Amino acid sequence: MVHLPIGFRFAGVSSSIKTKAGARDVTLIVSDTECVAAGVYTTNQIVAAPVVVSRSRTPSNKIRGIVVNSGNANACTGTRGHHDAVEMTKIAAAAVDPSGSLTPEHFVVMSTGVIGRFLPMEKVKSGIIAAASELAASETGFLNACDGILTTDIARKVSERTLSVRGNDLHIVGMCKGAGMIGPKMATMLAIIITDAPLEPAQAQRILQSAANKSFNCISVEGHMSTNDSLVLLASQPSAQRPALSGNDEALFSQNLTDLAIELAKKIPDDGEGATHLIEIRVQGANHDADADAVARSIALSNLVKTAITGGDPNWGRIVSAAGYAGVPIRPEYTALKINGIPLFEKGEPIAFDAAVVSSSIKGRKLTEIDLQVGMGPGLATHWTTDLNTEYVRFNSEYTT
Amino acid sequence: MVHLPIGFRFAGVSSSIKTKAGARDVTLIVSDTECVAAGVYTTNQIVAAPVVVSRSRTPSNKIRGIVVNSGNANACTGTRGHHDAVEMTKIAAAAVDPSGSLTPEHFVVMSTGVIGRFLPMEKVKSGIIAAASELAASETGFLNACDGILTTDIARKVSERTLSVRGNDLHIVGMCKGAGMIGPKMATMLAIIITDAPLEPAQAQRILQSAANKSFNCISVEGHMSTNDSLVLLASQPSAQRPALSGNDEALFSQNLTDLAIELAKKIPDDGEGATHLIEIRVQGANHDADADAVARSIALSNLVKTAITGGDPNWGRIVSAAGYAGVPIRPEYTALKINGIPLFEKGEPIAFDAAVVSSSIKGRKLTEIDLQVGMGPGLATHWTTDLNTEYVRFNSEYTT
Repeated sequence: MVHLPIGFRFAGVSSSIKTKAGARDVTLIVSDTECVAAGVYTTNQIVAAPVVVSRSRTPSNKIRGIVVNSGNANACTGTRGHHDAVEMTKIAAAAVDPSGSLTPEHFVVMSTGVIGRFLPMEKVKSGIIAAASELAASETGFLNACDGILTTDIARKVSERTLSVRGNDLHIVGMCKGAGMIGPKMATMLAIIITDAPLEPAQAQRILQSAANKSFNCISVEGHMSTNDSLVLLASQPSAQRPALSGNDEALFSQNLTDLAIELAKKIPDDGEGATHLIEIRVQGANHDADADAVARSIALSNLVKTAITGGDPNWGRIVSAAGYAGVPIRPEYTALKINGIPLFEKGEPIAFDAAVVSSSIKGRKLTEIDLQVGMGPGLATHWTTDLNTEYVRFNSEYTT
Repeated sequence: MVHLPIGFRFAGVSSSIKTKAGARDVTLIVSDTECVAAGVYTTNQIVAAPVVVSRSRTPSNKIRGIVVNSGNANACTGTRGHHDAVEMTKIAAAAVDPSGSLTPEHFVVMSTGVIGRFLPMEKVKSGIIAAASELAASETGFLNACDGILTTDIARKVSERTLSVRGNDLHIVGMCKGAGMIGPKMATMLAIIITDAPLEPAQAQRILQSAANKSFNCISVEGHMSTNDSLVLLASQPSAQRPALSGNDEALFSQNLTDLAIELAKKIPDDGEGATHLIEIRVQGANHDADADAVARSIALSNLVKTAITGGDPNWGRIVSAAGYAGVPIRPEYTALKINGIPLFEKGEPIAFDAAVVSSSIKGRKLTEIDLQVGMGPGLATHWTTDLNTEYVRFNSEYTT
């Protein structure tokens, strides 16, 4: 059972944007009252129209909902694409409240799917209208909404936290999409987190950005930041009297949101056909967290590291070398590496280890843990990625437009 | 027939460092007189011992030769590795001139092969001594030397240029190693270029660095800059009376050296089992050459682009998106893309094209040409990479240490 925050209604419907019959491809999430909303978006300069629209509308305390389509990214679609993205929010506003009290600006919008094709707006419109008619504050509605944002994902991805603040239960629930084996032209990460915690817009934005930096910004499948990547937080304000969280209460909320975001983010590389390993890369001893982040990212993006894990090969030279070209200072004389807790390399020199033991520890389970020390500084970072195997390549090369 | 520069002798022998019986794995190149030498080396901070030694000895006008082993990279081997690298140059000096007139500092050294294992110095020593006894100013000696630096390469890689300066023929000959499908733990690029052009050390270093920036620094297979990458230029000075090249003569030499370096560098991604495409990525319209370089590199390293080319998929969204996250300014409204000369995307909007025609143009030949305009600036760059196919993954994952 999902413990939904107070004040939201959900729907996910099929409107035949996706080619698979009956697949849900339009999601609508609506708040009963104006929400505080924050957003973190792709930094790709080739940015999809819905990102441009949503980015201009967050942070805010006037958002009433979010409208999403899957199956078409509305990216690289120029001015017509921009018009279509605005139109989606206009249709949502009219459908959710036919009395006309809502404006397009009350909605943020997300799209995911094929790049470079114009949205089939007739289908999108009928989907949004159908979704509005099905909105419900129910778990079924919520799960349908989760399904409506998926593309090549195998599994629905949901996480939740409940925390107690000043005698009240506060709820945080998140959904995301994105697969370890990213589909041929659907390399997008979307995430929506809803809460009934009282927040101010700037505060929500700050907390969300901090959580993103430790979660969705630390996962990679092929290092391809999509044109559409979006993470939006909606905080309903069911009791306007309550002041926004502060002090230890804010810290507790922030920690819970970050933990939830990490849990959600890890589901992305953990998903996907053929991904045989989730690789967790923990870097310590860098001069700064940002340096540790660069090292972890460099390792996470190395095809040679990823293929070594696929093969169960304790090939530490590939890992240490990837750290060395990350472009940040490291101290070779303090460099030390463990795979699944087994030391392979210390103080810049090889040490004896039983390759068969390390290999079977990699082959025997899905999670592979890499611990790398690169110096004596305080900088820490953790990244997650997948292995690279023939299924990935087959999936991404045997598809033809 | 290779037109060898005046003043060099060559040998390549087998000393059983490589496991394959009879494979040449020690190369020696010696100049009759002191050479001008320049070097460009890996910027990986985890740097192999031979790189540390050679880097400290170039640029110079006192180099008499270069000693290379393949089959073992002498990387991540700590102080013992450093001692072994120096020892290789000491053995070479003694073997080339038993009278004792040469010192270790007369030699630069390169290694390539497995990371993290100590050199088998008895084998290395006997190999260097055998090579010294076979040194010859012959094409056979030269080709044996070329073979001695290879690891997983399928093909020997040689390029040459002859130019006429003030009535004299000047010769430039280069060899390199590195395969499109880089071997399991042998991800090194080595290149040696020899010439009889009269140069000063600082001039040689400047010209070589410029050539490297347009050639070896513009190729990628998996973006893994190795611990051992080395490019060394040796310029014999057969006629000490001649002044160093200057003005137009220097420009002509520099252009020829750069062309040769590009030709050599392209042989690396063009080689290798299973690499079905050499991909040439030409970027124009960036604000600066460095920005164009960043865009071309981002595309070259994208697994999604590489797998699309494997499958003959004219998936331009992946290419444009990879340009967008390169981290440098681009102008989406001027973005235009051609694959094999066929326009797919113009001014930030999709245009109609015949996908079957583009697909068969990719499938029908080894070279795929990507032309991307990212703005109206003067910045240009060209990069070369391979596709990514199941053979690559199989080769790099099914090997176990």
